[in-house]
Amino acid sequence: MVQLKIPVVQNILQANDRLAEANRRRFDALGLFAINLMSSPGAGKTSLLERTVDGLAGRLRMAVIEGDLQTSNDAERILKKGVQAVQINTDGGCHLDGNMIQIALDSLDLEGLDLLVIENVGNLVCPAEFNLGEHQKVTILSVTEGDDKPAKYPLMFQISSVLIVNKIDLLPYIDCDIEKIRSQARQLNPNQDIFEVSCRTGEGLESWFSWLESNVAEKRKDRPRS
Amino acid sequence: MVQLKIPVVQNILQANDRLAEANRRRFDALGLFAINLMSSPGAGKTSLLERTVDGLAGRLRMAVIEGDLQTSNDAERILKKGVQAVQINTDGGCHLDGNMIQIALDSLDLEGLDLLVIENVGNLVCPAEFNLGEHQKVTILSVTEGDDKPAKYPLMFQISSVLIVNKIDLLPYIDCDIEKIRSQARQLNPNQDIFEVSCRTGEGLESWFSWLESNVAEKRKDRPRS
Repeated sequence: MVQLKIPVVQNILQANDRLAEANRRRFDALGLFAINLMSSPGAGKTSLLERTVDGLAGRLRMAVIEGDLQTSNDAERILKKGVQAVQINTDGGCHLDGNMIQIALDSLDLEGLDLLVIENVGNLVCPAEFNLGEHQKVTILSVTEGDDKPAKYPLMFQISSVLIVNKIDLLPYIDCDIEKIRSQARQLNPNQDIFEVSCRTGEGLESWFSWLESNVAEKRKDRPRS
Repeated sequence: MVQLKIPVVQNILQANDRLAEANRRRFDALGLFAINLMSSPGAGKTSLLERTVDGLAGRLRMAVIEGDLQTSNDAERILKKGVQAVQINTDGGCHLDGNMIQIALDSLDLEGLDLLVIENVGNLVCPAEFNLGEHQKVTILSVTEGDDKPAKYPLMFQISSVLIVNKIDLLPYIDCDIEKIRSQARQLNPNQDIFEVSCRTGEGLESWFSWLESNVAEKRKDRPRS
């Protein structure tokens, strides 16, 4: 059983990487900066996106691909903000893959876009293994999940260039040592940018917006003049 | 790609069910009540177990199998409470399976035990698809994850006979409609028992303890007289 399983998983990952690479070439040709946003269920991915749309209004043009097992709740929340959004329902699948993104891209008008955010299925494990063609992976961890999570789910933290620690407004009411999160994450990935924020109060979000803006500016340089 | 993947997953699930069935026969022969405890990362599985060990001390004998990608933190927390515990590290794997439990059982002294709790990997998606041989599946959802989670992760809530809504002490500080959680969960599984608790303050835990005790008493009737 185990012998049967391992080669198949490798094939899936290889085939996925080819599709992800095609997605990335498409983003690069458009001068579009793309991120893959991952977290546990309920860590605040969609709330961060709502805040980001508001915070960057007039500063850059973005679109969102939402991934969920079921419902189109999240895409509806984004559409209400006046931003292009497409919902992928995986029908039980535990992660997005390159093929799903390729299909979803056909539903978006990509011309003149600066930023594409792909919100993955809420899962701190499986999405870490599948590239989607994004330029950067971003993980959100909410302080209510506990300060032992980087050590317990290391791959997600190793592969993400940004860690957003969310819900810091709840720190007075819980037992969570935010320094422990920082030090565990830094051990796994010394170059990771860490932003401590509250999507509820808005605290700390400006640094995140600046990070996005500087990455978008970098990618814009590659955009073909029309 | 998709055609290749689907039959393999079916084979894995079938093979797993056979191993799970063997585990269950073993539990039944011992008159041992076994549960599979599942949730997102950080919803409070281990905290619930710590509270349960304390709350049921002297009332029943329990053991714990801990599942994590990495670390033995959780098993150590349980061992400190004076309860038998064994840690499974899946090394990146997103769920426990029947084979892992079969192997872990050999590390436990099962004679005279009343209750076995299997704490699955923190993941609200994949563990729902793999039976371990447990008699009941129990899901924990923390209110900080948001009130839309049953609708967004329906399988987990459909298959669980018990839903424990944890961290209710944080309700005054967040936007979460606990009635929405109840109604969504009841739509998915009308027979589900729902307990609202705080593992931090201890509120609401007695109903959960009573549920465990009555299930243990039922299973004890099958226990062979020695």
